[in-house]
Amino acid sequence: MTTVNKDLQRERERCSFDPFELTHLLDGGVEKTALRREREELFLSDPELQDTIPAEFKSHKEKYEDAIRKGCIVLRKVQEIQNEGKADIDIYSQVLGGMLGSAILKDGNPLTLHYVMFIPAIMGQATVQQQGYWISRAWSCEIIGTYAQTELGHGTFIRGLETTATYDPVTQEFVLNSPTLTSYKWWPGGLGHTANYAVVVAQLYTQGQCKGIHPFIVQLRDEDTHEPLSGIKIGEIGTKLGMNATNNGFLGFDHVRIPREHMLMKNSQVLEDGTYVKAPSDKLTYGTMMFVRVVLIKDIARYLSKAVTIAIRYSAVRRQCQISSDKPEVQIMDYVTQQYKLFPHLAACFAIGMAADWIWEMYNNVTAELDQGELERLPELHALACCLKAVASSDASHGVEQVRLSCGGHGYMSASNLPATYGLLTAACTYEGENTVLFLQTARYLVKAWKQAISGQDLPPTVKYLTLLSRRVKQRPWKNTLTCIIRAHQSVAAGKIRLATENMDRRIRSGLSQEDSWNDTSIELAHAAESHCRAFIVERFSNAVRSLTGISKELHTVLSQLCELYAVYWVLQRVGDFLRFSCLNVEDVPLLQSRLEELLRLIRPNAIGVVDGFDIRDEILGSALGAYDGNVYERLFNEAMKSPLNQESVNESFSLYLRPFLKSNL
Amino acid sequence: MTTVNKDLQRERERCSFDPFELTHLLDGGVEKTALRREREELFLSDPELQDTIPAEFKSHKEKYEDAIRKGCIVLRKVQEIQNEGKADIDIYSQVLGGMLGSAILKDGNPLTLHYVMFIPAIMGQATVQQQGYWISRAWSCEIIGTYAQTELGHGTFIRGLETTATYDPVTQEFVLNSPTLTSYKWWPGGLGHTANYAVVVAQLYTQGQCKGIHPFIVQLRDEDTHEPLSGIKIGEIGTKLGMNATNNGFLGFDHVRIPREHMLMKNSQVLEDGTYVKAPSDKLTYGTMMFVRVVLIKDIARYLSKAVTIAIRYSAVRRQCQISSDKPEVQIMDYVTQQYKLFPHLAACFAIGMAADWIWEMYNNVTAELDQGELERLPELHALACCLKAVASSDASHGVEQVRLSCGGHGYMSASNLPATYGLLTAACTYEGENTVLFLQTARYLVKAWKQAISGQDLPPTVKYLTLLSRRVKQRPWKNTLTCIIRAHQSVAAGKIRLATENMDRRIRSGLSQEDSWNDTSIELAHAAESHCRAFIVERFSNAVRSLTGISKELHTVLSQLCELYAVYWVLQRVGDFLRFSCLNVEDVPLLQSRLEELLRLIRPNAIGVVDGFDIRDEILGSALGAYDGNVYERLFNEAMKSPLNQESVNESFSLYLRPFLKSNL
Repeated sequence: MTTVNKDLQRERERCSFDPFELTHLLDGGVEKTALRREREELFLSDPELQDTIPAEFKSHKEKYEDAIRKGCIVLRKVQEIQNEGKADIDIYSQVLGGMLGSAILKDGNPLTLHYVMFIPAIMGQATVQQQGYWISRAWSCEIIGTYAQTELGHGTFIRGLETTATYDPVTQEFVLNSPTLTSYKWWPGGLGHTANYAVVVAQLYTQGQCKGIHPFIVQLRDEDTHEPLSGIKIGEIGTKLGMNATNNGFLGFDHVRIPREHMLMKNSQVLEDGTYVKAPSDKLTYGTMMFVRVVLIKDIARYLSKAVTIAIRYSAVRRQCQISSDKPEVQIMDYVTQQYKLFPHLAACFAIGMAADWIWEMYNNVTAELDQGELERLPELHALACCLKAVASSDASHGVEQVRLSCGGHGYMSASNLPATYGLLTAACTYEGENTVLFLQTARYLVKAWKQAISGQDLPPTVKYLTLLSRRVKQRPWKNTLTCIIRAHQSVAAGKIRLATENMDRRIRSGLSQEDSWNDTSIELAHAAESHCRAFIVERFSNAVRSLTGISKELHTVLSQLCELYAVYWVLQRVGDFLRFSCLNVEDVPLLQSRLEELLRLIRPNAIGVVDGFDIRDEILGSALGAYDGNVYERLFNEAMKSPLNQESVNESFSLYLRPFLKSNL
Repeated sequence: MTTVNKDLQRERERCSFDPFELTHLLDGGVEKTALRREREELFLSDPELQDTIPAEFKSHKEKYEDAIRKGCIVLRKVQEIQNEGKADIDIYSQVLGGMLGSAILKDGNPLTLHYVMFIPAIMGQATVQQQGYWISRAWSCEIIGTYAQTELGHGTFIRGLETTATYDPVTQEFVLNSPTLTSYKWWPGGLGHTANYAVVVAQLYTQGQCKGIHPFIVQLRDEDTHEPLSGIKIGEIGTKLGMNATNNGFLGFDHVRIPREHMLMKNSQVLEDGTYVKAPSDKLTYGTMMFVRVVLIKDIARYLSKAVTIAIRYSAVRRQCQISSDKPEVQIMDYVTQQYKLFPHLAACFAIGMAADWIWEMYNNVTAELDQGELERLPELHALACCLKAVASSDASHGVEQVRLSCGGHGYMSASNLPATYGLLTAACTYEGENTVLFLQTARYLVKAWKQAISGQDLPPTVKYLTLLSRRVKQRPWKNTLTCIIRAHQSVAAGKIRLATENMDRRIRSGLSQEDSWNDTSIELAHAAESHCRAFIVERFSNAVRSLTGISKELHTVLSQLCELYAVYWVLQRVGDFLRFSCLNVEDVPLLQSRLEELLRLIRPNAIGVVDGFDIRDEILGSALGAYDGNVYERLFNEAMKSPLNQESVNESFSLYLRPFLKSNL
């Protein structure tokens, strides 16, 4: 296995640019590449973190036990890095989620929410005094926490949560209770058998009144024995499509009492006598929610790049059928239909990644403004984060499935790592805000922005294009230029927002309520939000590529081709919208199709170079089909040989069941 | 759990038709419904076939062992039915695949290929004498076989297979050999540890010449000990996205000798001295391949109906958010975006099912003609079976994912049974002919048909529309009638076939080879085949509904609405094609969108009635979200409580790993 597959080698030889240049560009510099690689080496070369039997052969219980074992090793390593003073802010997201995390524990880590939700919730919602106590305990991992909000019967609509926390001024305690089965907490990661504390979101009752949902810190298990405390009903929710090591749990309360001081009171408070003191503003919790979504978009782009690397390398190695009968079988990447399945998703890795970088910067700016008391750009950020999370997760899951199918039967095997990658990505379509709900939140903002545009008001940068398009300026004739295509994407978005707004207003005028009109128009509203997001991504991609400085002409050419492919692909995917709302005419479509085919042809020779440039270690790819050396068949065979069923020539089910059955038929 | 959820009950009360009428219609009569239910009862009420611990919690090895145990029980039951003289032709496909099979073993059955491929291969390719011996042994289950064709490095392109069978006239034996790793057989179900015989496809060498691929019957394991025979390297290929109990295996030969008589010689023969006698015609094996595809399309429709039933029932039970703040939370099925995610796939169950019925009848007719020596309709049948299998599997997998996502987080749980259903369906996009390859096979037929049409030749029924449309008759103005919409679907198909043909011819004229021109045009060719198939399905659905007699007006109305929804939905999904190739104009689109929304509204009150009419037993649905009583939350909770992790309050990973880690941080 030390030799590299000859086809892959030839692909690398004819690549027109230096893949390392792309690597450094994506990492943000040569030093950052070195640092990332060093960190990857530290974790991935540790024999304790390697599997002898791959997790997919194990039982659900064994998977969990192994995840705890590895999770503890990972955290101890992180502590060592901290003690050496080498930890940076990224380390938790790197080793718990992200590329490194998904390499160490493909199916998720039950300790993730301790850092990703429990500690942030305390930081965001506890008083300084509370933080002093809890953060120090949590940060040093004396306790392990999670965040329990969603209930069996209640997800996105958090006002509907049923768990109650009733203040008892006599004992100065809150009584937590689960009045119904649907009020059981359901889903939090690590809740099942791992965490001994949780931030629990419950309806606060004091002095006989409901004050809405508030966060409480609750001990779940004894710190020494790990036994659930009295009145706590707790366990795990069972297996899922993916992420089966995250120990998602349920939690019910039977009149569990906690001290008054365990309500997180940075914002609202309950005084000793039960008096409720309302938070001065509830906009301040806005930021944390968006933080998770913004980070998620970057992770989505990375997961997609794993899948695309795997499928593109495999497509260079796999040969099938002859195009001409006198030639050997063809690399499947030479089929134009295969290129069509692969390269648009290769382009999407950049498109989503660049949009993620931009919104990350915007998030930081807006947060800084927020600290200055300026809330002005918050709605714009929120609207953009919603639709970007939705488009990124939906495109990427669809993309993984398309590239998996492009690998034929072998893509269906766990050893390809494409099924697990899909499991991670499709989950993101639902968590942190269900995608349709998020599109409709963006749509609400867009409808407002559209009305401001036609009334001549100034609009924030990401919707400024509506101002121009609200004036219905005469559109220029179609040209196959990126400028024209970007403008067309904006025309489509504007046209769909206009049409949805008009349809909604028409329904209201006809006597329907505001709410019913919204619901009746919601298909068009959701589609409008998607088009807006697409226009944003295309423009962002184009601007980012255009503004790249100090890179070689060769790399710039490849990135420009990918950008154009993305833009053209999405015109053709939604060609009806463009015929309806942009200056594209029926006669222009064949030329656009030709351009698409030409771009596929241009990208083809550099496809391996681009995925090499992602510089994803074999352990992170975790795929027999995608390894750098391209020894696909040897690796598939070696993975199969790890199956416990293959450790014995005859399985005992033969003597137990099959033999008696066969012999009875003689 | 004996009471039915109140929302579901109300839905049933307001249903405008009798769901039983639909059930009888789908089964083909009251008696057939009774027979189906009786058979389901026989298998599904057997306590030996029920799981105490659901398979998803078990290890890969345990899943296999359990599948063998259950598989033997199922076959013994089938034998009992045979002995009572009550077996019909459908029983094998029912209990091995199909709805009943997927209820007994959600993750597949390692004994399936014995009936589905091994026995049919012998029947189709063995001489009468060979059949006498082998069929009787196989039919009585003295031996268990599988069918080994695909290799690690070779799938769709069977001419590329590498396994060799070299005739040795001295001993009158064939020597089977696997010259390379890529020549190992890879994928056959039951091959890993279950079958002791296989029909093996290999390159025949005799008298120093390669005579192409031929089938051989090969003993793999000792009939008593089940140990692999000398020279046989065998095992399983590992875990997959789904179907993890099917024991897919690999198989390598190290100069394994088998008697000359083990070559299946119905068609070609090798005489004792090594003389090769060629088959008189190779068209006769055509039929078997199509048989599998034709049966598969019906199964695909059924699997989709499972998923749709689950999601629609859940959408009636689940409540989320308020539309108006003074009202309770809303059944999520009342959201128009939710209806849009569900009802087109409800319609697709009928669309695919009716197309499947039609092609099944065509298959039987063509097979009957074949026995008379008439081969005329074979290419038409082949072209239609290819694209129907591709569209059905691709639409249905996409449909399952959409309805799964419509169930939010709970759809992601194994207990929903939607992930496993996806696992079954998405596999069908690849096996029995990869979908893109199949589309291009249909396209080849369509290009030919188009050329015949423009040269004025008569065309077979399923492509007859091309004759009319090749004359470019003036199209009538758009009307939102089914007749106009069907015609428009045909115009789109014809337009795309014409354009692809022209583009290919243009490439050939410019000097490109036939093969390269085909490859360069293949995106458009594949799309044209899809449009052709869609036009067929829409017309078939419409004709089938129109020709239904003896059903109530109420049921007829519902089916007509579903038919129209399907037709309109696919215009709007491909609206660009319709603007380009049919008489649809930009101004017509909003009216069509309104009609779509109206149809969703009309179908809404009967959606539960329709899925009730599918009459899918709870054990077949296998879903906490989809059971008839709608007790979603109780069932989800009960399923979770079956997890082995929930049988103990503290998992041992606490004392082994977590406690030492936490305590070290004090």
